[in-house]
Amino acid sequence: MRIACVLDVDYEDSEYKQPYDAFKQAGHQVTIVGLEPGKELKGKKGTVTTKTEIGIDQARPDQFDGLFIPGGYSPDHLRANPKMVQFAKAFMDSGKPVFAICHGPQLLIAAHTVKGRKLTAWQTIQDDLAQVGANVVDQDVVVDKNLVTSRKPADIPAFIRESLKLLEKVPVGAR
Amino acid sequence: MRIACVLDVDYEDSEYKQPYDAFKQAGHQVTIVGLEPGKELKGKKGTVTTKTEIGIDQARPDQFDGLFIPGGYSPDHLRANPKMVQFAKAFMDSGKPVFAICHGPQLLIAAHTVKGRKLTAWQTIQDDLAQVGANVVDQDVVVDKNLVTSRKPADIPAFIRESLKLLEKVPVGAR
Repeated sequence: MRIACVLDVDYEDSEYKQPYDAFKQAGHQVTIVGLEPGKELKGKKGTVTTKTEIGIDQARPDQFDGLFIPGGYSPDHLRANPKMVQFAKAFMDSGKPVFAICHGPQLLIAAHTVKGRKLTAWQTIQDDLAQVGANVVDQDVVVDKNLVTSRKPADIPAFIRESLKLLEKVPVGAR
Repeated sequence: MRIACVLDVDYEDSEYKQPYDAFKQAGHQVTIVGLEPGKELKGKKGTVTTKTEIGIDQARPDQFDGLFIPGGYSPDHLRANPKMVQFAKAFMDSGKPVFAICHGPQLLIAAHTVKGRKLTAWQTIQDDLAQVGANVVDQDVVVDKNLVTSRKPADIPAFIRESLKLLEKVPVGAR
């Protein structure tokens, strides 16, 4: 499966790196989509550095089978770009897998796609989600149809487990 | 007037420092209230370092005449603490002056105090505010009764001007 990882500076290092590695190890392709191509991206803890492969101006949702939104300060940067918001909305609208951890659901709030959806997020984002009509659950991982969400770095193992499980379930015709 | 400046690490340097200095220069007292007392707080750009004077466990709204919420990543850290959210709510409920810039209104969203209020904020927070029922205006400064809000560092002069003007208007009996 082809997964778009949307990322900007000051992401939470482990929330990007560990699922990214796990997706690759499981045989999926992961492409880092950023605000511009070739931008160097350092994690907020400074332990991980990576680079965007394509910019949002070049990215099309139909190139990908799923969307991965790591946490930290990155999602709030990403959602300042209307094309990035539309990109995320396309995955939610089409029912393709979306994996969002920690502050990741901030991008889904900006895409107006969480009303009535069951999900979790970083503690402070949980209340934002509830106020815009989401069904918020405070647990390590929540799976609601195409949407897998988790709260924080400690939840990463559960987040990876359920994300990989969902990718296995996607019908071959959709690939 | 006694102003509580609520602050945590990775605040936007100029959005803390410039209004802080302007409030002091105008003769007001400003106390830095943080998540814990004596915590060193560096700005996200690394150009300003300060220290909390009192922790939220020691702070009471009746000790202060106004609330100042600088931007950056600080407001999202602060609103993870329920006492900090209650502290902010007390100023909004009592109608004491509240000055919030950039991401500052995130704390007011967490306090459930923005519905029906006219305000502005950082671009990405503007949509959060609109979704929870605020009347959002995209301009350098917005004054709505006790509430002064601005969007970004470029708006600081207008933010300071209207904040100081509001402090002059607060009746002496309320001091």
